[in-house]
Amino acid sequence: MSDLTHFNNEGRARMVDVSDKQITLREAVAGGTVQLNPETFKLVMHGEIKKGDVLAVAQVAGIMAAKRTSDIIPMCHPIVITGVDISFTPDEKNHSIDITATVRCKGETGVEMEALTAVSTTALTIYDMCKSLQKDIEISNIKLLRKTGGKSGSYSAEKS
Amino acid sequence: MSDLTHFNNEGRARMVDVSDKQITLREAVAGGTVQLNPETFKLVMHGEIKKGDVLAVAQVAGIMAAKRTSDIIPMCHPIVITGVDISFTPDEKNHSIDITATVRCKGETGVEMEALTAVSTTALTIYDMCKSLQKDIEISNIKLLRKTGGKSGSYSAEKS
Amino acid sequence: MSDLTHFNNEGRARMVDVSDKQITLREAVAGGTVQLNPETFKLVMHGEIKKGDVLAVAQVAGIMAAKRTSDIIPMCHPIVITGVDISFTPDEKNHSIDITATVRCKGETGVEMEALTAVSTTALTIYDMCKSLQKDIEISNIKLLRKTGGKSGSYSAEKS
Amino acid sequence: MSDLTHFNNEGRARMVDVSDKQITLREAVAGGTVQLNPETFKLVMHGEIKKGDVLAVAQVAGIMAAKRTSDIIPMCHPIVITGVDISFTPDEKNHSIDITATVRCKGETGVEMEALTAVSTTALTIYDMCKSLQKDIEISNIKLLRKTGGKSGSYSAEKS
Amino acid sequence: MSDLTHFNNEGRARMVDVSDKQITLREAVAGGTVQLNPETFKLVMHGEIKKGDVLAVAQVAGIMAAKRTSDIIPMCHPIVITGVDISFTPDEKNHSIDITATVRCKGETGVEMEALTAVSTTALTIYDMCKSLQKDIEISNIKLLRKTGGKSGSYSAEKS
Amino acid sequence: MSDLTHFNNEGRARMVDVSDKQITLREAVAGGTVQLNPETFKLVMHGEIKKGDVLAVAQVAGIMAAKRTSDIIPMCHPIVITGVDISFTPDEKNHSIDITATVRCKGETGVEMEALTAVSTTALTIYDMCKSLQKDIEISNIKLLRKTGGKSGSYSAEKS
Repeated sequence: MSDLTHFNNEGRARMVDVSDKQITLREAVAGGTVQLNPETFKLVMHGEIKKGDVLAVAQVAGIMAAKRTSDIIPMCHPIVITGVDISFTPDEKNHSIDITATVRCKGETGVEMEALTAVSTTALTIYDMCKSLQKDIEISNIKLLRKTGGKSGSYSAEKS
Repeated sequence: MSDLTHFNNEGRARMVDVSDKQITLREAVAGGTVQLNPETFKLVMHGEIKKGDVLAVAQVAGIMAAKRTSDIIPMCHPIVITGVDISFTPDEKNHSIDITATVRCKGETGVEMEALTAVSTTALTIYDMCKSLQKDIEISNIKLLRKTGGKSGSYSAEKS
Repeated sequence: MSDLTHFNNEGRARMVDVSDKQITLREAVAGGTVQLNPETFKLVMHGEIKKGDVLAVAQVAGIMAAKRTSDIIPMCHPIVITGVDISFTPDEKNHSIDITATVRCKGETGVEMEALTAVSTTALTIYDMCKSLQKDIEISNIKLLRKTGGKSGSYSAEKS
Repeated sequence: MSDLTHFNNEGRARMVDVSDKQITLREAVAGGTVQLNPETFKLVMHGEIKKGDVLAVAQVAGIMAAKRTSDIIPMCHPIVITGVDISFTPDEKNHSIDITATVRCKGETGVEMEALTAVSTTALTIYDMCKSLQKDIEISNIKLLRKTGGKSGSYSAEKS
Repeated sequence: MSDLTHFNNEGRARMVDVSDKQITLREAVAGGTVQLNPETFKLVMHGEIKKGDVLAVAQVAGIMAAKRTSDIIPMCHPIVITGVDISFTPDEKNHSIDITATVRCKGETGVEMEALTAVSTTALTIYDMCKSLQKDIEISNIKLLRKTGGKSGSYSAEKS
Repeated sequence: MSDLTHFNNEGRARMVDVSDKQITLREAVAGGTVQLNPETFKLVMHGEIKKGDVLAVAQVAGIMAAKRTSDIIPMCHPIVITGVDISFTPDEKNHSIDITATVRCKGETGVEMEALTAVSTTALTIYDMCKSLQKDIEISNIKLLRKTGGKSGSYSAEKS
């Protein structure tokens, strides 16, 4: 159990002490996919929507969720995020939308969970705004794509 | 665009007015999967953890997130939830954990988003507590499994 | 002091007891104005912004703030809001933007504060997103425009 | 374990389903004591404070915390509170302050936790505002004093 | 659109990256006015209120809102505020109350939005506590009065 | 009144300015006791609970509350906590449970309130999960046990 750093001597969860870690610039990029049917996909990506759209709302939700990560994930440290960017890559063939969230901070611990929480919330918001059209939307492939900064060094997911 | 009920006359997002809907007992069940490697799976499911465990923390996070859904998903209505239950089904062969969240309420609108937010947050918390062991954890299959109550009637996802 | 219902016998603030009030359909409409300079106004209203815009973000913020009103205004009752809509009326001559927020609920108490909080937050978000362009933006005219429902009856602000 | 209703079949925590319970008017009264030294007590109770005071801030904190109880206590149901009142009884002899919080709602479940959370937060805020004067402040006697409404009937704590 | 720094390459909103900015001491002062009628003004400013008052509650609300700014305004960075002070200047002639909020931090980005959010919330709370007396309260003149610190230097609003 | 640093020149509450304070490593340890009857104590401490337990849920609540302290206690500064640990010491003879919370940060101000808020919330959660068994649970002895770091130096409570 020594490998699960989130547990204390009593075997109970704790928020790991990071007081001794260096403050470095850290960045994490996470991804995820929302699978729609062709009709919903078309409406979201190519609808005649002038002043607002599903993805604009979803992205605001994702950015706000990134800031609230330590309030949602119990053992996450509060982090003073310095930047968040969320982008969308439509896959016309599979009528799905890939979400990518990039989060940066200067701190003692990384921002993987902030990027993953941003992606999940962005995906859930797309789901929410399309659920009157389609009930079998599916969210998948939520994972860390890349991270830099910190003692454990850089990480880059293998291409699937 | 008339099908996307979340937009107003100006083409901007709104919170759909549900004042005229009936108050009925509603239930939604959502699911999702956390894919681990064999070592992490073994540690989470069969570790010598006496007084606490990863899944206990993850499940508390999921229940708390269900209550906060309308604070996280922009166009969701506030809902007075009457019950939340989260369960885990380990898949020993694929070393993955299936999460199921059941949410109930008596209200004008359904609790799909509450169940989906509970599943996502439970999965993210498992990720957080295992990320020191493994960086390529993946969350997938987040979808609505079943819902009852409300005018649009019952829904049950097809078995995959 | 008997007229200030928000105070108890000790002269201290309390959340007024509304247990005995009737549950009725209530609606409140509030308004406010953001005064910009001609250049900022032009960029916000007529900029070449395809997929997102200042007003889309501001409006999401306003809707989310309406839901969080009782968490921000100390003596406000929690209210299960059933609908929120925010619209914008640009005033080309004065290069200002009028914001209108409409909030509905079925409850024991009105939603004036929810509508006013939505307008204020929408205005503050426009400010935030334009403050790199102009430092002397001003928010004014925040007031209740109309309300219906409840024992005290309807109210409509005089035209100014 | 059948008596601990907060656990599901798997032995994990759940939010108890109250969908079948009757909606009744419910009230809970909780109490607690903040023990100060004579100097701090004198300053808080008899200081020359004209426009604001320690207890006014503490009481606003307590009311706001009552509204946020289900966001803080994991298995608490969200409750649409209809009234909160907090009062103070100074004990000149023991230089301590007794806090009483009364919370009301119309709902399927009681407001004991809301009243207890209000008392605790009020006490912690007094602590916070006096901690530059005295480090050995102590909070005690936090308990339910009285409750009415609901199937389990009324309860009244024995006089100590 | 290059001037609106809150948008990314896709034309969507982002939280601007401030990782490269210097950490400096920053201060912002914002103001706003609540317009009351003579009777309400008199009750708020000169009422026989011993232990608590409208302005005390409003000011606690403003301080708490300043801390929650990045949770309310979507593109605001989280900021570790080091001080907040709110003061009131009654205007007897116009029976209005001027609110001034001063916020300080040591960080990469300014605290204008924190000061403006504090003023808005303080004003909304005065509105809430007086709305049983008067329905046509108006909030206006919300603007930045002064700011120091950061690369863009100091700013001081012209006297109106 | 000069000793109550939480008040400004007008006699109103403020968030004390800590901009000039040194950033040092700070730690605070707080304690508290939950008094149960013998039956409830036995069920909580020695029940046949395999995968989850009352204390596991209570401890997650305590850690999450520590992070939210500045959102709950009005004049508390936001603090970037670097570690939280909560432990339990059962007192078999008195059938009570002692809670100890340790919080660390690197900052301009201490974490006493974070430790005390963690203890209070942990105790309230134990109360919540046992209240179907026993109505006369009592929470007491909430106090600071120890603190280090900062200009005012170390503090250690006298043994009682």
